[in-house]
Amino acid sequence: MAKVHIIMGSQSDWPTMQFATKPLDDLGVEYETSVVSAHRTPDRLVEFAKSAEDNGIEVIIAGAGGAAHLPGMAAAMTWIPVVAVPVKSASLNGLDSLLSIVQMPKGVAVATQAIGNSGAFNAGLMAAQILAVSDTELRNKLKDWRLAQTESVPTAVE
Amino acid sequence: MAKVHIIMGSQSDWPTMQFATKPLDDLGVEYETSVVSAHRTPDRLVEFAKSAEDNGIEVIIAGAGGAAHLPGMAAAMTWIPVVAVPVKSASLNGLDSLLSIVQMPKGVAVATQAIGNSGAFNAGLMAAQILAVSDTELRNKLKDWRLAQTESVPTAVE
Amino acid sequence: MAKVHIIMGSQSDWPTMQFATKPLDDLGVEYETSVVSAHRTPDRLVEFAKSAEDNGIEVIIAGAGGAAHLPGMAAAMTWIPVVAVPVKSASLNGLDSLLSIVQMPKGVAVATQAIGNSGAFNAGLMAAQILAVSDTELRNKLKDWRLAQTESVPTAVE
Amino acid sequence: MAKVHIIMGSQSDWPTMQFATKPLDDLGVEYETSVVSAHRTPDRLVEFAKSAEDNGIEVIIAGAGGAAHLPGMAAAMTWIPVVAVPVKSASLNGLDSLLSIVQMPKGVAVATQAIGNSGAFNAGLMAAQILAVSDTELRNKLKDWRLAQTESVPTAVE
Amino acid sequence: MAKVHIIMGSQSDWPTMQFATKPLDDLGVEYETSVVSAHRTPDRLVEFAKSAEDNGIEVIIAGAGGAAHLPGMAAAMTWIPVVAVPVKSASLNGLDSLLSIVQMPKGVAVATQAIGNSGAFNAGLMAAQILAVSDTELRNKLKDWRLAQTESVPTAVE
Amino acid sequence: MAKVHIIMGSQSDWPTMQFATKPLDDLGVEYETSVVSAHRTPDRLVEFAKSAEDNGIEVIIAGAGGAAHLPGMAAAMTWIPVVAVPVKSASLNGLDSLLSIVQMPKGVAVATQAIGNSGAFNAGLMAAQILAVSDTELRNKLKDWRLAQTESVPTAVE
Amino acid sequence: MAKVHIIMGSQSDWPTMQFATKPLDDLGVEYETSVVSAHRTPDRLVEFAKSAEDNGIEVIIAGAGGAAHLPGMAAAMTWIPVVAVPVKSASLNGLDSLLSIVQMPKGVAVATQAIGNSGAFNAGLMAAQILAVSDTELRNKLKDWRLAQTESVPTAVE
Amino acid sequence: MAKVHIIMGSQSDWPTMQFATKPLDDLGVEYETSVVSAHRTPDRLVEFAKSAEDNGIEVIIAGAGGAAHLPGMAAAMTWIPVVAVPVKSASLNGLDSLLSIVQMPKGVAVATQAIGNSGAFNAGLMAAQILAVSDTELRNKLKDWRLAQTESVPTAVE
Repeated sequence: MAKVHIIMGSQSDWPTMQFATKPLDDLGVEYETSVVSAHRTPDRLVEFAKSAEDNGIEVIIAGAGGAAHLPGMAAAMTWIPVVAVPVKSASLNGLDSLLSIVQMPKGVAVATQAIGNSGAFNAGLMAAQILAVSDTELRNKLKDWRLAQTESVPTAVE
Repeated sequence: MAKVHIIMGSQSDWPTMQFATKPLDDLGVEYETSVVSAHRTPDRLVEFAKSAEDNGIEVIIAGAGGAAHLPGMAAAMTWIPVVAVPVKSASLNGLDSLLSIVQMPKGVAVATQAIGNSGAFNAGLMAAQILAVSDTELRNKLKDWRLAQTESVPTAVE
Repeated sequence: MAKVHIIMGSQSDWPTMQFATKPLDDLGVEYETSVVSAHRTPDRLVEFAKSAEDNGIEVIIAGAGGAAHLPGMAAAMTWIPVVAVPVKSASLNGLDSLLSIVQMPKGVAVATQAIGNSGAFNAGLMAAQILAVSDTELRNKLKDWRLAQTESVPTAVE
Repeated sequence: MAKVHIIMGSQSDWPTMQFATKPLDDLGVEYETSVVSAHRTPDRLVEFAKSAEDNGIEVIIAGAGGAAHLPGMAAAMTWIPVVAVPVKSASLNGLDSLLSIVQMPKGVAVATQAIGNSGAFNAGLMAAQILAVSDTELRNKLKDWRLAQTESVPTAVE
Repeated sequence: MAKVHIIMGSQSDWPTMQFATKPLDDLGVEYETSVVSAHRTPDRLVEFAKSAEDNGIEVIIAGAGGAAHLPGMAAAMTWIPVVAVPVKSASLNGLDSLLSIVQMPKGVAVATQAIGNSGAFNAGLMAAQILAVSDTELRNKLKDWRLAQTESVPTAVE
Repeated sequence: MAKVHIIMGSQSDWPTMQFATKPLDDLGVEYETSVVSAHRTPDRLVEFAKSAEDNGIEVIIAGAGGAAHLPGMAAAMTWIPVVAVPVKSASLNGLDSLLSIVQMPKGVAVATQAIGNSGAFNAGLMAAQILAVSDTELRNKLKDWRLAQTESVPTAVE
Repeated sequence: MAKVHIIMGSQSDWPTMQFATKPLDDLGVEYETSVVSAHRTPDRLVEFAKSAEDNGIEVIIAGAGGAAHLPGMAAAMTWIPVVAVPVKSASLNGLDSLLSIVQMPKGVAVATQAIGNSGAFNAGLMAAQILAVSDTELRNKLKDWRLAQTESVPTAVE
Repeated sequence: MAKVHIIMGSQSDWPTMQFATKPLDDLGVEYETSVVSAHRTPDRLVEFAKSAEDNGIEVIIAGAGGAAHLPGMAAAMTWIPVVAVPVKSASLNGLDSLLSIVQMPKGVAVATQAIGNSGAFNAGLMAAQILAVSDTELRNKLKDWRLAQTESVPTAVE
């Protein structure tokens, strides 16, 4: 069973959320993906969140846009860390998504990333970092990956 | 059983949400109030929303602040109209509350009011207006109330 | 006579506002549409709002952009619930439309939806929800419609 | 009959709007004041705006806060220039007032000033400037007033 | 000599500012246009503003974008009413232009219009309204123009 | 050695950041605290971040306000998860802090919490959640803590 | 003659702008201060800016709030570097001041600092840095000052 | 050795940052360019900033977008003036970049320019202005360049 599960509010979030899979693939971390809409499929969300631990999930990545309730509501129903991605919205460029996700009240936390593709990519990375706390092999891969990233930045402007 | 039920994410929302009771009291519309936190008591929210129709509720008023998920999540679990109040938040003055509430995706609607006390007051009013669609007596009271409001506005600046 | 009347400030709002007709069509709720500009045709607005009740209108849907005064001004002249749609504006992406519509003062309420197409769609839905409070047949259709919506959300990301 | 008429949406706008009277007093321009609420007294607004010309009004100053519809709606019903003041609002510091007032659609214009007291003061000044276009005596007073203002600015920081 | 003079910070503002000429043309109000940059040609601005009255100018229309200092600086150097147009900017959609223009301090006023094309159009209209205060013929044309505008709004949505 | 280390940009951030210690204390998670300023003590930041792993740190909590570079720069120099708290700032209420922290580019992630006290509290909670992924005892404590939190929410509004 | 001259739009900016004098005093850089209002004393601004070089000024520090035109207009009339301070404004917390100052068009630059007291302090510092480019003694003082600042940051949270 | 060094967080910032080279080329000021990422290459940044003085750099131009930490972190490690350019970001149009850069805390200053291309251009200009403080030849070139710029602005709108 995959330790990371990526949920998103709609199929239309996938072009953004697929960036989360890049660092997970690079680091050999398995993941699964599902569409779970807080608003259109609330029962599915309850079912998903409450069974996540039993299903062996250790980190949830959740992306949503606009009045983005998915990450916070998932976090409300499980102790498992939820890494959240504000998907860029049609009218307010994701500022609504960001504020809907990040401004959680005291007592239920999510780990918010940047708006859009970079945030989705970093959600995958953060999931790996969380797992690496107790996984020495992954930690080493992560350190190598970071080193490679550093080395891939050319000094010269072209 | 009261036709209007006012829920709020926290006891601390009551100083704002109590303004919703003013027009309901004026118009003789019965209501009940509960604290239901989307994040800290998600099961209570599911229970509340799914039993609302059976409990004779015809309009829900929901107030919350910050990453305000309560109105939208209630609306996700019942067809009953949810009138929503963005409570003023500590850091962003309720802009976060407003965007978290109003930017709902296609398919699940809430009826958003202004940020803070005025919005709470108007939530009570809108609840009465919704009930008045099929209640001639209430409609007449509402028309009188509106007339009295108009007449209470002095012309002279003092 | 149609119970729902959709007004908009300009013909140019129609590409947005037509989304309001989708759920109304789905649910068999009749509606009419008119262009009523608060600024360019204020008399028409007064005439429309004051005769709405006599014309059998039970819910008004009003869409406008920029300094969007149409929903609030219609609400000022009738007790009938006004469901409001902030149309996306040319320069500020509808943030101006949203704030112009939602920040109503105590005493005159509108039921604000999201900016743009989703908001227009949900305005139609909210109108139906309001009518369903006293219309058992519509209520049942609405519940079926919601169920179908839930079932139409695929789990698998494609 | 006074050529300038100052209207405001509520008695509570007066602490702001009274700043408009300062330059008018300084320049000897007569004015009258009224509370006219676009939302709570729409008929009074129609009556005021439509009779303004016959009442000898040559410039209207209109102040309102939040979803501030008063200046734009007054302008919709008269050709007389409307100088508008966004009053600072409870939650969004007047940004909502400003956008509600300034973002008027093509065809109906208002002359928007700054948010709050400075804007109210300048509304009085702009009203005088408009009248001075055809009033040589006022123009001279205005030039003297401006000169005195310039001379009253000390160079030294104290 | 034309009573209305339209200045703009850059040739690149013309596609926006040309909308100001439409109502002026409709109403037979003569105007002239110049590029005057507050930042790149400050002397030209001083010269323009200080000689405006002697040149028979009765209303100045000024458009600028970004850190838009042109309208306020022109207003600082003449008593003639300055109608201001915030031109849509490259990065912040004209919000910077709007705030730079409208938030004038007590003592020097401008008459701010909406961001972009609508604001430019309305600047022309407001200039005509200001002139109509003392020009009965123009006033009548303006009333006819407004009437025609009202009549041109179709009721039916197409 | 404590597994959680709380850093902040200034002593003045402590009234906010101390909220992070509450859930850690509740859950028996040890932590240490230091002032590390990205701008005033950049060498200390480098030293801290690079030695964090060797010092047995498993989660870093970093709080800063304004142009808040501390969390992102710490994250740039270690693979250890950095949970970030945007501290409310003097002029922009923490919106600057939030955007400075959350909008990280692809390749270096932080786990952003809400602005201010709630965010600090949740940072402590998220740190515990991250540790609980591999610590069954802590996980059980966390589940009990969450249960107690749920039960502490009264239904009745008082 | 002092090489640094601090100008501000109003005496009321002094409580903010006096922070600029702290690093200048610390570093032994002489400065003078004047009130120069772009809007109320435009001639004084022209005179100041055009004579700045002849008066031996090498860096100008300019602070203003709201529609803050002073720094940009000073920069328009001299090649001398203008370091700009957006003073916190009454209604929009200095966001208007910031955007009015920083969004300068291509061709005339200012060196913008943070909103309010920190920005004023840093304006003094930046002025010293600019002078230190060609003043070895000042450069050494500046390096010592920076070192002392670093050493003054305690590690322990109290 | 070039006195001006232009750094940017990513190769993707070059289409913006190349505008900084235009005024430097015009004025004959030599410069070098490098990619230095605060987040992906923090060691390179430390190395760059700490050796800048020894490498004869007198002004640093730094551009970055999103959570833009590069200018502030460079400024934290050198006394050399850092002229900063907020690069337009993917989701928030550079507002995040601007706030991340400009809102520096007391004690470490940067000289922020406008968002995007104009800001980059002006960064080159400001670098030249800083050097011109102690370079009479450059000062004369700068004055000529400014004069030519003024003369290149046509009066007539085309």
